[in-house]
Amino acid sequence: MVKKEIDFHDYIASVPDFPEPGIVFRDISPLMADGAAYSAATDRITEFAKAHGAEMICGPEARGFIVGCPVADRLGIGFAPARKKGKLPRETISVSYDLEYGEAQLFMHKDAVKPGQRVLVVDDLLATGGTIAATIKLVEQLGGIVVGTAFLIELTDLHGRDKIKDYDLFTLLQYSGS
Amino acid sequence: MVKKEIDFHDYIASVPDFPEPGIVFRDISPLMADGAAYSAATDRITEFAKAHGAEMICGPEARGFIVGCPVADRLGIGFAPARKKGKLPRETISVSYDLEYGEAQLFMHKDAVKPGQRVLVVDDLLATGGTIAATIKLVEQLGGIVVGTAFLIELTDLHGRDKIKDYDLFTLLQYSGS
Repeated sequence: MVKKEIDFHDYIASVPDFPEPGIVFRDISPLMADGAAYSAATDRITEFAKAHGAEMICGPEARGFIVGCPVADRLGIGFAPARKKGKLPRETISVSYDLEYGEAQLFMHKDAVKPGQRVLVVDDLLATGGTIAATIKLVEQLGGIVVGTAFLIELTDLHGRDKIKDYDLFTLLQYSGS
Repeated sequence: MVKKEIDFHDYIASVPDFPEPGIVFRDISPLMADGAAYSAATDRITEFAKAHGAEMICGPEARGFIVGCPVADRLGIGFAPARKKGKLPRETISVSYDLEYGEAQLFMHKDAVKPGQRVLVVDDLLATGGTIAATIKLVEQLGGIVVGTAFLIELTDLHGRDKIKDYDLFTLLQYSGS
């Protein structure tokens, strides 16, 4: 079957000055609203996950869920969420980190990942890499093996990939400049 | 292929006094951490979505994403998120509503649903029905046709289904009492 090649850039809305002046927000909602584009993006991340032998997908709330959950489903594996304060009801571990704009804390349930489990960590967007580095730290504190990281979008000027250079990286789309 | 019958109750953690004293939180994270259980739950909601001719899945953040995104992917259709304040970067509409504990406001992008589009609204849990009624209202304000609602869990004592009785309803698991 020949699939029409999708230019994923066509499905990203660039919104100036959100959430703060000077920041151009790359909005994935048009991509996820389009079944063919969402499916094609999921194809690519699933290939990467499979090639790395992922046994679990982990992603930070909330857009990491949108990216990661269909990948977990395609592979018949589980999904482990990393969440903000007060969202997870059982015993958790946490990590504090700096964001592109502000500071944050991220939590995972203590039983979210099994020791030795091969985990792919995903999110919608790689900016400074703070959120993903925190998620990786949580997975590793639980004894998981991070086999790679995958994103829909990379903001190349923010050099987030330098912060996670010890891990195989997949990014579907790259944006430079603001 | 004969599949072993899954008792989904085995994959729900019941956590007393979360997020407030007297409330028993039904935590779906063990279900989503288990590939077979997550996949089997997704099977059931996908069947319901297909039978109702869904062309788009919509769910409130963040657990609605975990439930709905794999269903959208299975059907090759899009996913439209309903989100809290300050999360959606483009032009939105909003609805205010009462929660089981507290009050909240929910937003959707103005272009999230196309007029006439058949939308299945999903979430992890049906409690008083406030969140799902708000999400339905948003979809309908955008001109979408809500073809049904689907949940992993229904707390039957809270009578949430009365609030959405005009819509076909699927719930995978029911809990009564606290």
